[in-house]
Amino acid sequence: MTMSLSADLWPDVQPEAARRLMLAGVESFARRGYHATTTRDIASGAGMSPAALYVHFPSKAALLFEISRNGHQQALALVREAAEEADSPVEGVRLIVERFVTWHARRHTVARVVQYELQALPEKEFEVVADLRRGIERIMRDLVVRGMESGDFTVADPGTAARAVLSLGIDVARWYSERARKAPAVLGEEYGELALRMLGAKVD
Amino acid sequence: MTMSLSADLWPDVQPEAARRLMLAGVESFARRGYHATTTRDIASGAGMSPAALYVHFPSKAALLFEISRNGHQQALALVREAAEEADSPVEGVRLIVERFVTWHARRHTVARVVQYELQALPEKEFEVVADLRRGIERIMRDLVVRGMESGDFTVADPGTAARAVLSLGIDVARWYSERARKAPAVLGEEYGELALRMLGAKVD
Repeated sequence: MTMSLSADLWPDVQPEAARRLMLAGVESFARRGYHATTTRDIASGAGMSPAALYVHFPSKAALLFEISRNGHQQALALVREAAEEADSPVEGVRLIVERFVTWHARRHTVARVVQYELQALPEKEFEVVADLRRGIERIMRDLVVRGMESGDFTVADPGTAARAVLSLGIDVARWYSERARKAPAVLGEEYGELALRMLGAKVD
Repeated sequence: MTMSLSADLWPDVQPEAARRLMLAGVESFARRGYHATTTRDIASGAGMSPAALYVHFPSKAALLFEISRNGHQQALALVREAAEEADSPVEGVRLIVERFVTWHARRHTVARVVQYELQALPEKEFEVVADLRRGIERIMRDLVVRGMESGDFTVADPGTAARAVLSLGIDVARWYSERARKAPAVLGEEYGELALRMLGAKVD
């Protein structure tokens, strides 16, 4: 179960032992926070010795960075693909929000670490992740601006509106759990509508 | 400086030493997380001995509970007052979002602890706080339903919409900092408009 989940979460990470450590890291960080988690906790969560952990990650910070960088790369990739697939700003915002919300609901434990443990990253690593975040924000902001130019959106401040649209998705990671009444994709569709309304699109 | 800020944050808490400990707790929890903070860290942040901390709070959990309960009571009070002041669902949602967002921006460090350290509360204390949260959600949901009945709002699912409106405000605590370009009250006004649009209100 753990092995297949880790492969599902991080298909590009090799070997399997590294993925298992990342999964154990996510679980510990989400439960107790980054600072209160020891490398021993993580290693034992992955059924490994602390020495075996260091074969794959030189430090706890390196493990957090790998989780965070991977999560942000996945989010950026899905946002970029949705923007490229869409043939209008309205369609672009709808697709991005649907997939971004679905991802944050389905991957809520990973997403919680990715979104809320940023300040624990060392400065250089933080900058790498901040750059990925700016990429996501830029795509959304550009779409909002293009939609204003085409007359599809009416927005007072495209920066504020783009941030608010992404906020809706990010906050899903905070409250979503397996006990939520809604399936991730259903929630994504509803939020897609809500986001377009925020931007003043005529969708009704 | 510390003393006046603590009085400003918790006007109802007495004595001043308890407020100072709550402020030191907020700063430590926000920086390192609840689990990695010791009572010694908090006491020394407040310029007190660990023994002096126990005069006011029997445990670190009791201190977190007091911070969380107080923050949620403040949020519930401002939401309730806004709902009572307003003479329509449109006005109610606008006022709540304006004040809720302004509070989360202005009090972003406290709000971050209040919103993101819930799972660290012991079960009984969690239930007290969860009850206050349900109070906030109920007021927003009732307003959305009333607005649907009066024809002011058109919403597919009032529960989802009410949650999304509150999400916008909560997520402000995650990203807002003193370096943000917008003053809290200005952001509050912009978000008030965005929230009403989400609900399908005619505000333009």
